[in-house]
Amino acid sequence: MSLLVTGSIGIDTVEAPSGKAVDALGGSSVYFAYAAGFFTPVRLVGVVGEDCPDGFLKPLEDNPNIDMGGLEVRQGSKTFRWHGRYHEDVNQRDTISVELNVLGERGPDIPGRFRDSEYVFLANTHPGLQAELLGQLQSPTLVVADTMDLWIETERELLLNLLDNIDGLVLNDSEAIQLTGKSNLIEAGLEIAGLVKRFCVVKKGQHGAILFVNERAYPLPGYPARKVADPTGAGDCFAGGMMGYLAAEDRVDDETLRRAIAYGTVTASLELEEFSLNKLMKIDRNAINTRLDEFLEMTKF
Amino acid sequence: MSLLVTGSIGIDTVEAPSGKAVDALGGSSVYFAYAAGFFTPVRLVGVVGEDCPDGFLKPLEDNPNIDMGGLEVRQGSKTFRWHGRYHEDVNQRDTISVELNVLGERGPDIPGRFRDSEYVFLANTHPGLQAELLGQLQSPTLVVADTMDLWIETERELLLNLLDNIDGLVLNDSEAIQLTGKSNLIEAGLEIAGLVKRFCVVKKGQHGAILFVNERAYPLPGYPARKVADPTGAGDCFAGGMMGYLAAEDRVDDETLRRAIAYGTVTASLELEEFSLNKLMKIDRNAINTRLDEFLEMTKF
Repeated sequence: MSLLVTGSIGIDTVEAPSGKAVDALGGSSVYFAYAAGFFTPVRLVGVVGEDCPDGFLKPLEDNPNIDMGGLEVRQGSKTFRWHGRYHEDVNQRDTISVELNVLGERGPDIPGRFRDSEYVFLANTHPGLQAELLGQLQSPTLVVADTMDLWIETERELLLNLLDNIDGLVLNDSEAIQLTGKSNLIEAGLEIAGLVKRFCVVKKGQHGAILFVNERAYPLPGYPARKVADPTGAGDCFAGGMMGYLAAEDRVDDETLRRAIAYGTVTASLELEEFSLNKLMKIDRNAINTRLDEFLEMTKF
Repeated sequence: MSLLVTGSIGIDTVEAPSGKAVDALGGSSVYFAYAAGFFTPVRLVGVVGEDCPDGFLKPLEDNPNIDMGGLEVRQGSKTFRWHGRYHEDVNQRDTISVELNVLGERGPDIPGRFRDSEYVFLANTHPGLQAELLGQLQSPTLVVADTMDLWIETERELLLNLLDNIDGLVLNDSEAIQLTGKSNLIEAGLEIAGLVKRFCVVKKGQHGAILFVNERAYPLPGYPARKVADPTGAGDCFAGGMMGYLAAEDRVDDETLRRAIAYGTVTASLELEEFSLNKLMKIDRNAINTRLDEFLEMTKF
């Protein structure tokens, strides 16, 4: 089934204990699309500025499973830039600088031929823009969004309105606590699953994720990664693996959702082994399946 | 098979958002023994002072699976006391006061009839004392110890000597990082498993645990607890459930170890629903098995 992602395309500079990537390809829609593309064709909607270097998007353009028909190169604008630095403990990072640039302007249009998309992921951005993008779609089967602490704090009303109209929300544990005011993460996740139509996934970084659906909680541990070069994009690859699998299966029953977050987990676990898309560009779906088998085996008790 | 625990017996005062327990029965050997007693008979070795109130240990004495033959009531000494306060987020706590009392004196003797114990848990205390207790045992099959940040910092040499002579170590994630100096928790756990004879279990509180054995990592998520009245003792109940199961099975192959940490997880998840031993005193092995089945079902992906 058709899968659409809307989100950022960025020029990332990342420093980590194991190395540094300067002006590398990044952004939520980029990581999502590349991860989901292992499972199913993906339609990408995003905007860059006219400064976007020649060939910068080649890894996406060369990927036969990514349809770049929703890319806008906006004249007079500049591309989103992010510079982050990971600590010795790569679960901690500091943002050195952010230049929103084109992300601070009006959002992209979804091309006419993408508007029939059935599976949709609205990567993190202003919830008003997420609602506007959602409004451009005809009758999607499953809409899942990501959000962040900034919008929970400053745009709660708009965010709650959005939740009313989507099927699933993916967010971090601290954000789930912030959104609900509950101190117990399980209570928080269950409450959020009740605010959307179907389910909530709480991401806990190295500690895994919890799926909340039908008033039940399904916890999944993190993949025990010995080598973490660059966690940037891991959350988006988690979502990409999850949504890619759901769209490929074209089912969203509880069992398929549970398998989908396992796919999300292992897809992300591969991505973070190298900087930017470097690892994902070297692997195929077999590598993901092999890691899934390994992960399922090590989590049998 | 015979299971022995050495550890503290305490008079605990616990404040938490859901209530307060004053002068309640606590201590590592108490929680451990009660949890392990659901699986197999347990021999308890510990010391209280002459101030220990009449009937204070009745829950242990009334438990047919706990042999209190290793209890010393030391004249002229006072019982260990701990006072803690949990935050609104019960994963955080402050220690209000600690009175080591008898725990700051010489350790207990292991009674002659306990010295043939085959499965042994040395709950957290000074590693010199742990080694001394270990030296009193004839030829145990499996010796597992717990430790803490204080000993890693102040008694590293003695602790490393102890590790040389035991089969397994149970510790928190921050302690694993501290002990090894590794920033990656998986690397840390694997290294520690190599310092002991057999395995290491890294506990991550609400995020579950990871078993490290034979150069492999087996992550287990936390049980998604909606109701957490008092996490005090959860780590000891985890160890109790784990060791109780191992001793009952009298096997320590990798598969049995994996099932054992699942039993530890669910035993702890029950204990923290109420203060002190209150929950454990109301349940039986069936309740643990039922929760295990539920946990295994919710973690199938």
